[in-house]
Amino acid sequence: MTNATDLTLGRRVMAMIEELARHTDEPGRLTRLYLSDAHRRAADATLRLMQAAGLNAHIDALGSVVGRIEGADPEAPALLIGSHIDSVVDAGRYDGNLGVVLGIAVIEALQQGIAPACPIEIVAFGDEENVRFPTNLSTSQALAGRFNPAWLDGRDQDGITLRDALVRFGGNPEGAAALARDPARYRGYLEVHIEQGPLLEAKNLPVGIVSAINGITRARCSVIGEAGHAGTVPMNMRRDALAAVAEMIGIVERAGSTRTDTVATVGVAQVQPGAINVIPARVDFTLDARSPDDAVRLAMVQDIVTECQAAAQRRGVEFTIEPFMESPATPMDKALIGQLEGAVRSLGIEPLHLSSGAGHDAVAMANLCPSAMLFVRCKGGISHNPAESITVEDADVAARVLIDAVKRIAT
Amino acid sequence: MTNATDLTLGRRVMAMIEELARHTDEPGRLTRLYLSDAHRRAADATLRLMQAAGLNAHIDALGSVVGRIEGADPEAPALLIGSHIDSVVDAGRYDGNLGVVLGIAVIEALQQGIAPACPIEIVAFGDEENVRFPTNLSTSQALAGRFNPAWLDGRDQDGITLRDALVRFGGNPEGAAALARDPARYRGYLEVHIEQGPLLEAKNLPVGIVSAINGITRARCSVIGEAGHAGTVPMNMRRDALAAVAEMIGIVERAGSTRTDTVATVGVAQVQPGAINVIPARVDFTLDARSPDDAVRLAMVQDIVTECQAAAQRRGVEFTIEPFMESPATPMDKALIGQLEGAVRSLGIEPLHLSSGAGHDAVAMANLCPSAMLFVRCKGGISHNPAESITVEDADVAARVLIDAVKRIAT
Repeated sequence: MTNATDLTLGRRVMAMIEELARHTDEPGRLTRLYLSDAHRRAADATLRLMQAAGLNAHIDALGSVVGRIEGADPEAPALLIGSHIDSVVDAGRYDGNLGVVLGIAVIEALQQGIAPACPIEIVAFGDEENVRFPTNLSTSQALAGRFNPAWLDGRDQDGITLRDALVRFGGNPEGAAALARDPARYRGYLEVHIEQGPLLEAKNLPVGIVSAINGITRARCSVIGEAGHAGTVPMNMRRDALAAVAEMIGIVERAGSTRTDTVATVGVAQVQPGAINVIPARVDFTLDARSPDDAVRLAMVQDIVTECQAAAQRRGVEFTIEPFMESPATPMDKALIGQLEGAVRSLGIEPLHLSSGAGHDAVAMANLCPSAMLFVRCKGGISHNPAESITVEDADVAARVLIDAVKRIAT
Repeated sequence: MTNATDLTLGRRVMAMIEELARHTDEPGRLTRLYLSDAHRRAADATLRLMQAAGLNAHIDALGSVVGRIEGADPEAPALLIGSHIDSVVDAGRYDGNLGVVLGIAVIEALQQGIAPACPIEIVAFGDEENVRFPTNLSTSQALAGRFNPAWLDGRDQDGITLRDALVRFGGNPEGAAALARDPARYRGYLEVHIEQGPLLEAKNLPVGIVSAINGITRARCSVIGEAGHAGTVPMNMRRDALAAVAEMIGIVERAGSTRTDTVATVGVAQVQPGAINVIPARVDFTLDARSPDDAVRLAMVQDIVTECQAAAQRRGVEFTIEPFMESPATPMDKALIGQLEGAVRSLGIEPLHLSSGAGHDAVAMANLCPSAMLFVRCKGGISHNPAESITVEDADVAARVLIDAVKRIAT
């Protein structure tokens, strides 16, 4: 299906992945939270890789590593390529890192050929997982001019503020605003990332093109019924909170399943009092609903609420829902999608378009300039887990697609 | 509906209830576990009430209070009347105690009239709630000749054995076997108890006649699916353990609802990993299924298992069920039911027959002699709770029904 290669690019990508994977805060597993010692070492390692590839690189005020090569026309708007090098606790080695090292591999390959027509910047963001501090894509939002100064006062679980952690890292809390780029100076942002889902594996495709990053509604829900003796209260006189929530979980599952590209999940359900011989009095549960289309998502959530209210009324229980997150969808740029599609097709691969269920730095970067993403197949769709895995063949395909796309975009 | 009375009997019952309710192990709430100091004080108080009523009374080797009056024919088989005076933690004052004081009230009333034809024994059992030690109706099973000597080695949560607690109480661990009664010497056992359910209140009836004490199946169940990112795994590729269990809870609810007199409850459901953005990988839940008819219960459980297995197979998840309790139903004696029915009807009350969802000393006593139970309406069907409540009017009705039934049975 794909053209035969000697996998040089794939092997180079994997070598850089291994090099970054050495930097962890916890021996025996990969944990690299924003502004930790391991993040600093990984940023330094990324800086060296960029410099070795010929990039003019530095670590910015918020800890992002940024490298730039000028193009044939130094005044032309630049192309950004990037992803992040922070991780969750007990992470895999590809989430984020893959997009950074692929960017560097592209520069290495280009340096062996002709210079690009426009400047190219490679960025390794530091705060995508938002695990340590109560932030939201802070390092990429800074480039888009949307850094929220209140984030500096957020604390990690040890009580350390982002401000203090940044100073200790060697950054500059006062420099965040100055990181904002001029949209006129950027033609686009490309991010390669593992899929974190099973679709490419199921379709037997090495890569896919992201059409949109899904919008998300998150809500806390409660059902309050009435406790009772599991032996003595007849079925038709019960107000069983768990039986009601079971019906609601079915409603959520159907709502997510009967629309295109939507998902809807109940991940938490806590039962009170939780005894084998007591009819449940109260269940607290969560809703996570996503769609690449905001109107579809809002209608889906509204249908869920309406159906759950009807079920609650029929059962004589009290249903409450409290949405606490409404994140709109981020459609990817159609022109960039077209250029990625051309690059994928030129390798003889069917260009599959899929939405991203997870959030990415591209959500923030879309505020700055046209943005697009390429997904790489990952084994079993597994991510945020040491079992995260991709093949050298797929890494090679991704590198060749990215090089081809950069050539199409940068000329 | 009922004949007018001056509520003398009801008031006397309530006065004795208040007297017993003073004896608690915890100031401010009623807790009277088997063989505790409060149990000893309550047993002594019960002994005094029995003696004042003219009963020849004693506290037996296991702490039950037993009082006897001889009948016109001292050789005639005796009628037993009783219930228990131990309680759960933070209990109501009627559960158990009501049946004991009603027995005493009946003797007080009879002593003012003619002697009964046969001997009558009033029993205040001590270990019905089975909260403190790992026993099962030990004090009433002892009268039925089914005391399990291994129970003496059972320990409470402080590590104290039943044997040691019994010695400290003033009982005699070696005397349990000698408590067994000769079935030929007993014509029946009557127990009055609060309903612990809402049926009598719903039917606007002060009392009801128990047709059978339900059999119970209890089981631990698990569903194992696959964790995944709530944003990236398409609905049709999920193996969501919680969505599967939601369907199973619906199966359990329907199984309990579509048969006569059955109940089926899922009281516990624990979700792993239990995060808003992670598809649940595993849910452990419980099943409690009850019926007055063992064949119906076993068929109901089999249908639940079959349907849950089908749902699991369809969803690609693993379902396991591990029954750990199979307690057969205890039908009440038809002749005694008929005599209770006559007594209820003679007060102008419709005799409602209902099964008991909860277990009672009558389950053990049915091993000794024909047994029957009268339920008394309790407010909101609430029990095992300080809010447990009955009216003086209903207590009066229960006392008059019991006196009439005793006259019918004892002659």
